[in-house]
Amino acid sequence: MKSENTPAPTRVAILGGGFAGLELCKRLNSPDFDVTLVDRQNHHLFQPLLYQVATAGLAAPEIAQPLREIVSDQKNAHVRMAEVSGVDLPNQRVDLADGTAIEYDYLAIALGAKTGYFGNGGWAKHATGLKTLDDAMRIRREVLLAFERAETEPDPGEVKRLMTIVVVGGGPTGVELAGAFAELTRVVFEGDFRRIDPSEAHIILVEAGPRLLDPFPEDLSRYTEERLRKAGVDVRTGVRVEQISDGVVRIGGQDVRAATVIWAAGVEASPVTKSLGVPLDRAGRVIVGADLSLPGYPNVLALGDIAACTDRCGVRVPGLCPAAIQMGQHAAALIKNEVRLKKKGMADKAPLVRKQFAYRDKGIMATIGRSAAVAATGKFKMRGLIAWLAWLFVHLLFLVGFKNKVSVFLQWVYSYVTFKRASRIIMGMSHDDGGALSPPEIR
Amino acid sequence: MKSENTPAPTRVAILGGGFAGLELCKRLNSPDFDVTLVDRQNHHLFQPLLYQVATAGLAAPEIAQPLREIVSDQKNAHVRMAEVSGVDLPNQRVDLADGTAIEYDYLAIALGAKTGYFGNGGWAKHATGLKTLDDAMRIRREVLLAFERAETEPDPGEVKRLMTIVVVGGGPTGVELAGAFAELTRVVFEGDFRRIDPSEAHIILVEAGPRLLDPFPEDLSRYTEERLRKAGVDVRTGVRVEQISDGVVRIGGQDVRAATVIWAAGVEASPVTKSLGVPLDRAGRVIVGADLSLPGYPNVLALGDIAACTDRCGVRVPGLCPAAIQMGQHAAALIKNEVRLKKKGMADKAPLVRKQFAYRDKGIMATIGRSAAVAATGKFKMRGLIAWLAWLFVHLLFLVGFKNKVSVFLQWVYSYVTFKRASRIIMGMSHDDGGALSPPEIR
Repeated sequence: MKSENTPAPTRVAILGGGFAGLELCKRLNSPDFDVTLVDRQNHHLFQPLLYQVATAGLAAPEIAQPLREIVSDQKNAHVRMAEVSGVDLPNQRVDLADGTAIEYDYLAIALGAKTGYFGNGGWAKHATGLKTLDDAMRIRREVLLAFERAETEPDPGEVKRLMTIVVVGGGPTGVELAGAFAELTRVVFEGDFRRIDPSEAHIILVEAGPRLLDPFPEDLSRYTEERLRKAGVDVRTGVRVEQISDGVVRIGGQDVRAATVIWAAGVEASPVTKSLGVPLDRAGRVIVGADLSLPGYPNVLALGDIAACTDRCGVRVPGLCPAAIQMGQHAAALIKNEVRLKKKGMADKAPLVRKQFAYRDKGIMATIGRSAAVAATGKFKMRGLIAWLAWLFVHLLFLVGFKNKVSVFLQWVYSYVTFKRASRIIMGMSHDDGGALSPPEIR
Repeated sequence: MKSENTPAPTRVAILGGGFAGLELCKRLNSPDFDVTLVDRQNHHLFQPLLYQVATAGLAAPEIAQPLREIVSDQKNAHVRMAEVSGVDLPNQRVDLADGTAIEYDYLAIALGAKTGYFGNGGWAKHATGLKTLDDAMRIRREVLLAFERAETEPDPGEVKRLMTIVVVGGGPTGVELAGAFAELTRVVFEGDFRRIDPSEAHIILVEAGPRLLDPFPEDLSRYTEERLRKAGVDVRTGVRVEQISDGVVRIGGQDVRAATVIWAAGVEASPVTKSLGVPLDRAGRVIVGADLSLPGYPNVLALGDIAACTDRCGVRVPGLCPAAIQMGQHAAALIKNEVRLKKKGMADKAPLVRKQFAYRDKGIMATIGRSAAVAATGKFKMRGLIAWLAWLFVHLLFLVGFKNKVSVFLQWVYSYVTFKRASRIIMGMSHDDGGALSPPEIR
């Protein structure tokens, strides 16, 4: 396909428009490349604020941006909204569920992770995860409907069940959800009900490990637990969720009846990895070399949450936004460098100069609720209002980069200050005329 | 139940939290009344901007507000999120689908209208109406997905079908939708696709009558038609839609293949009216007296789009927001006056002094697209930019009243100016892992 005079552009297929895939795509903005960006959604999602959509703080479109719009000006990039059904590595071909295929010179697999139930797939029906906008909308609908039902329910036991929310998993997502639910029920709902007292909502945060926010320094974990307890959250560490069935969660041998159960305890790699025929780790992630390539396929890289990577300094790269972005940057530099060498007729030198990835730790943060957060990076750590302001600042920077989204940030600060939740709207119930109000979500 | 010393509050049941019901509720803010506001949604909807949600201009929560939040401070008002299954007028009781009932002294039926297909109920499956947020979200999803499909479709005939949108009905809703779709495809989508040219989208606006916007002066109808044609809309007046099936619309004998068909041609009253046993008009609306009461039931009023009313000046009250609000005001004044008379022991005087409703015409307006609108009130009429600014001003006033929604207005003006559509987000596709991208909406 290539001629000596005008070489055909290098075909790069990027699977996944998350932080890693999008970063790579943007950095290959040159006529040297023909980039195809595949995602099953039409939008990039600003995942760090997804819990705000689930807890009615933000509208769904406020944390998402159409991929086509993002790469509109990058004329060498093609967006394909499609499901990946498999990858044929030896033949350098991606198969899509719509029956078409994409051939590539380089492939970046950046499909991310999905909610993982540690082998208890049956729990998925009863405990929603939080990875997509649809997940967030479902959680919002479930919780808002449960309180509507509680307001008219005569049986006190049933009222209690309707007002119980169990969040499984004490990592950042679980902590943020529990904190936001405490705020929703105790502050936002205040005065809005006549029969129930929404501040009596029972919010349980369950963590199997000995403490919340395991990757954080221990004193920050303790601080987080205290803050959540003060906010009204029933924090239970060191106990396991043993069973989740329709409306009942068994926590450390005790059955808890809860209308809403949210699973924030684990993720596993996108199932596409199983079709690759390469070694995977326990969570289904692709085990890559320090250059991010798949063993035996130097032209195939795995980026972001789908990759199990130990970098050149021996650090296990965590599943965080900054890591995903850095991996996208690394992949872009690597591909660009090799294509440049090829252009100069030095393609044989490429494997010799291939760089290895080095993760730069930007630290970790989690919000606990209104004006409280924890943050840690290396030896440095923060908590309380100052950490919350830092969290705000980091997200502001991100959102500003995320063009045209400053208004979202302002809206969100505004609703924080005023305690109004602009998105307390129940949708997706598909009423039949004259039918009963009985969405299947509410048991 | 009443004693001479401390009379029990008068029980007022309001069915429907739209403009009429909410206005009545707010005006009965007094311990003299015990108000129950029933709606099957948890929110009041700012219907005049619903077309903006359908065309990806605004996020759904931006034009809706939780009813509980609106009446939070009105302690005599109880919000019930429930479906009305029937009304037993002789026994003064409203039956709810959840099996409970509400007894009343006064009843206001303000359940509004739903999409009506003139007896062709089967068309509902193929032609979405636009009355609820779920409708709007479905239309948005259908249109955005059709263009995603078109981008990868090899068959040119199929591409054409995917890029065809038929809007049935040339009233304000149809005109606003057609104008907004023209803008979405010609301006917002510009540069975002690589294979298709979205400006070739075929947007057909069908009106069976001789002209668009029938209630407007004729020259404004002509102006609207010209503006829409210039914007790229295929306006067809004086032809009927004879059949709508899966992906095909027969318009005046000609079969048009279209992936998206929207029904904006008519509404009919909420089906609850059939349970009342009182005279209804052809659209199922309750025929009320000039005092808005049902024949034989002076304590039962019908308000807003569900009422067929000829006011005391012989004017047939139109199905518009201002009319609904005025009816709510009238009902509040009427009920308050009678309760006051009863308190004074002059209940027998009530029927003698009962006021009749007089509709104050605030005029009619419709937007055609970016910076063009038409407006008419009495002899006065406007068109173009000045009418659009007037439209903007009226909606600004409304939204400001709609507390805490100024930011929406600013957001919306901003997206108007920048041609960004913050809500071009596809949701509700419920992916299975590894499954195909084949939502049933796209044929």
